[in-house]
Amino acid sequence: MINIVIDTIGGDNGASVCVKGAVEGLRQNGNIKLFLTGHKDEIEGLLAEYEYDKNRIEIIDCSEEIGLNEPPVKAVREKKDSSLVVGLTLVKEGKADAIISAGSTGAILAGGQFVVGRAKGVKRTPLAHLLPTAQEPSLLLDCGANVDIKPEVLVQFAEMGSIYMESVCGVKNPRVAVANVGLEEEKGNQLVKTAYHILKKKEGINFVGSIEARAIPYGKADVIVADGFVGNVIIKLYEGLSKMILKELKGAFLSSFQSKVGAILIKKSMKKTLQKFDASDKGGAPLLGLKGLVVKIHGNSKDREVVSAISQCVSFVENKVNERIVKGFEDVEE
Amino acid sequence: MINIVIDTIGGDNGASVCVKGAVEGLRQNGNIKLFLTGHKDEIEGLLAEYEYDKNRIEIIDCSEEIGLNEPPVKAVREKKDSSLVVGLTLVKEGKADAIISAGSTGAILAGGQFVVGRAKGVKRTPLAHLLPTAQEPSLLLDCGANVDIKPEVLVQFAEMGSIYMESVCGVKNPRVAVANVGLEEEKGNQLVKTAYHILKKKEGINFVGSIEARAIPYGKADVIVADGFVGNVIIKLYEGLSKMILKELKGAFLSSFQSKVGAILIKKSMKKTLQKFDASDKGGAPLLGLKGLVVKIHGNSKDREVVSAISQCVSFVENKVNERIVKGFEDVEE
Repeated sequence: MINIVIDTIGGDNGASVCVKGAVEGLRQNGNIKLFLTGHKDEIEGLLAEYEYDKNRIEIIDCSEEIGLNEPPVKAVREKKDSSLVVGLTLVKEGKADAIISAGSTGAILAGGQFVVGRAKGVKRTPLAHLLPTAQEPSLLLDCGANVDIKPEVLVQFAEMGSIYMESVCGVKNPRVAVANVGLEEEKGNQLVKTAYHILKKKEGINFVGSIEARAIPYGKADVIVADGFVGNVIIKLYEGLSKMILKELKGAFLSSFQSKVGAILIKKSMKKTLQKFDASDKGGAPLLGLKGLVVKIHGNSKDREVVSAISQCVSFVENKVNERIVKGFEDVEE
Repeated sequence: MINIVIDTIGGDNGASVCVKGAVEGLRQNGNIKLFLTGHKDEIEGLLAEYEYDKNRIEIIDCSEEIGLNEPPVKAVREKKDSSLVVGLTLVKEGKADAIISAGSTGAILAGGQFVVGRAKGVKRTPLAHLLPTAQEPSLLLDCGANVDIKPEVLVQFAEMGSIYMESVCGVKNPRVAVANVGLEEEKGNQLVKTAYHILKKKEGINFVGSIEARAIPYGKADVIVADGFVGNVIIKLYEGLSKMILKELKGAFLSSFQSKVGAILIKKSMKKTLQKFDASDKGGAPLLGLKGLVVKIHGNSKDREVVSAISQCVSFVENKVNERIVKGFEDVEE
């Protein structure tokens, strides 16, 4: 049995999408049990609308909530009875294998590190995101959990990312690249140059060298490593620029009668293309290298994203990703 | 009289666009003289097609060329008679105020630093680019000239960028922001956190705090500072992602008969929108903080971009940008 916590507080769409997703996740995965943390009365009320196996969902009542604008570390330390911290504690104690939350990213990152804790041998725990590309999605890590890091940490990110993409996303022998300002070996800042030399000799990963930011949208690598500052810039620029371009184009489509008619005619083809860039069926963003799995889903996630994240957790546990990560770092000095 | 060098070698479109742009630039600006460096016979042949004031164009024959794939520093040191180094030397010697080149970015950066040299008080010379946004373009610096820098260098970038945007682009009291992973003051890596504190107290610039990458495409700042690694990632991801999205949409438009008809109807409105994102009429990318001005134009520039870059150089010199930069750094210890 795989035990997964769903934090029902903190998402833009409230507990209802979590509950709906939980019931569907239960239906799709015969081997899971779910813990729903949050307001018991509310969750019970929502669950009453569905038919499900009552032995496989457990509600855990929590008296506190962590808001999106609270200082993360303080919130995690002080609000022991929040839906997030209660859930993370279940993972820490081994009562659950994974937790899914749509709450504050900062609190999830802080809670992952301070409550769940790093797995043996892991130096830093990166937040990973799947970036949509013209081909298959690429896994980018770290997206913001660790901003000032050493080269060996970047190397660990490469190893963890490679294991994740192979085990959870089914990419064979994933191509691993480091985000850089040029392709030549002498390019980069000190961090990247040193990491490059270690990665080049590293066994067990398929290191393909540097990737320039302009090549990222074309899917030239399966795993892209960067420090948390650069990774955060990439993920947020990706999001902001795509949205801005589509918004401006929409404005163009609505600017005249002629263009409005044109927009109706291209709608179907465009929708199909844009769907390609939607990676939400691949689950949420995993915080890797912890003693369990912590998955951050988008604040505006719907039940569909909750279901994907449940499958992601199942795949993560079934494929023993954490065991593989820890095994790879057996010789690491703490 | 403002003296400007145009390096006619290294662009994808050859010397002809440089010559055409030069003649048009001469027509638009009564107070300039141009030096065209390159192959004399070729330039003379191209010039023969135009009517122009022969006293205001001087051809300087060069026996060498710097290729796009040559190691930049080596090329600049060894090829003293290349069109780029000859031009840069004219700037160094004060015979020219500025140089425009479509050649190798690496060679232009190296040549700017080693041949022209830094202006007094300038710690590092950043490459600046205008980023198209949903509003007016934002100046991003550094786009890749200096990857490992100290906080004081980032502060100088902010000051130079602010002077440039005000003087050359006519933006009053430009809003200066630092690229960061969050808006709160405690966010960022060590470099950005320290620079933030200095910038907050700095007089003479309108520092508005941090900007997250997702806000960059919306034009939330006029000047954005970053180290050369982060800046390079931003500019290249901007380029790559925009191109990829437009390419995919084009593919969608051509995917069915219906969508093809639709595409014809929206073409005009879309073109108008896309023009907004074309900053080529604002000139090329200036390398700031040198004893003269070095402008890198895109490798695929046409005569129009050459004309814009000439106007940019004129504006730069007339508004005494370098004098203002040097004056601001009078107290800097070398």
